[in-house]
Amino acid sequence: MNTQTGILTVISGFSGAGKGTIVKRLLEKYPQNYALSISATTRAPRPGEQDGREYFFRSVDCFEKMIEEDELLEYAKYVSNYYGTPKAYVQEQLAAGKDVILEIEIQGALKIKEKYPDTLLLFVTPPSFEELERRLVGRGTETPEVIHERLCRADEECMGIEAYDYLIVNDELEACVDQVHSILQNEHTKISRKELFIMEIKTALTNYAKGE
Amino acid sequence: MNTQTGILTVISGFSGAGKGTIVKRLLEKYPQNYALSISATTRAPRPGEQDGREYFFRSVDCFEKMIEEDELLEYAKYVSNYYGTPKAYVQEQLAAGKDVILEIEIQGALKIKEKYPDTLLLFVTPPSFEELERRLVGRGTETPEVIHERLCRADEECMGIEAYDYLIVNDELEACVDQVHSILQNEHTKISRKELFIMEIKTALTNYAKGE
Repeated sequence: MNTQTGILTVISGFSGAGKGTIVKRLLEKYPQNYALSISATTRAPRPGEQDGREYFFRSVDCFEKMIEEDELLEYAKYVSNYYGTPKAYVQEQLAAGKDVILEIEIQGALKIKEKYPDTLLLFVTPPSFEELERRLVGRGTETPEVIHERLCRADEECMGIEAYDYLIVNDELEACVDQVHSILQNEHTKISRKELFIMEIKTALTNYAKGE
Repeated sequence: MNTQTGILTVISGFSGAGKGTIVKRLLEKYPQNYALSISATTRAPRPGEQDGREYFFRSVDCFEKMIEEDELLEYAKYVSNYYGTPKAYVQEQLAAGKDVILEIEIQGALKIKEKYPDTLLLFVTPPSFEELERRLVGRGTETPEVIHERLCRADEECMGIEAYDYLIVNDELEACVDQVHSILQNEHTKISRKELFIMEIKTALTNYAKGE
């Protein structure tokens, strides 16, 4: 019987830091432990994308109805498209004891953390700032405009990082996946997540005292 | 070169939960990672105890001079004896990049946490409250007075546990030691302990922006 509630976990990070690959491998390696939350969006599917795999593709009407009926953990509008996290699937998986992984950017993560303070926030980064530089500059063949755009994006991507819990340095994929797994396993042993166990022990001690 | 500062870690727990054994094994298994802080006391050494191993045995005058000169991280008086944590050794080991383990009770731990908020607090418990009960009641041969005394001690031993970070359930020693090691390894990757790395990345991004 599963008496343990899952942990809501957000993974964010710099573009190209490999967070998608980490999440995919984590789910492959520990399918019993984790569930992946899939976002809903009003943008059109790109070639090869599948409804319910990359995203739930929804009409604007449908999305706005989800907002109205409080069916999203968080949502935001980028350019003219909505993106959001459907609540039902996340809550169902957490109740079943699975840790639910959300791969979203910092602004969405902070909204979720505000509503659900025991959300765990992980940030994925390349192994060094030189490596991030290299990825921003590219192979020297990029126009200054492209570099500038990447730079601005990277700057936005880490805005609010101080509110995060752990920094995942993606040097070697398997080590990284094991680190995320180990952080989550330990997270289940946090005192703040062991209220029931502690209450039971304290009650037992009090009952003894009364019984004497 | 070691650029990483060690983490001050307190291990507390119920009597008989095995915290001494866990700490001993942790230091044996990972001597490069950890250093054990040894308390100072004014109580007389018991047979077999050695100065600098179980405790630093000091005279009352000497101990009070340490208090006066702010040479202790925390101290307390139990019955008529002083107990305290010498500051110099802890700071020296932390600076050398070792995580320093203190095996002290909750009240001392909370004093340290107040002064040094990034101290990590671990609490060791038997695997179930039934097991704790068994240890409190003993083999049924104990007098009600002995049981009562144990009960009161256990109640005190967990007073303030809510301020702790992790609960270590001591079921199997090696698993427990590995859990403590893994918690400490992960702790080094906390965002709040990665300020330098994050500052470097942010500075690099700003410098690019200026250079464009």
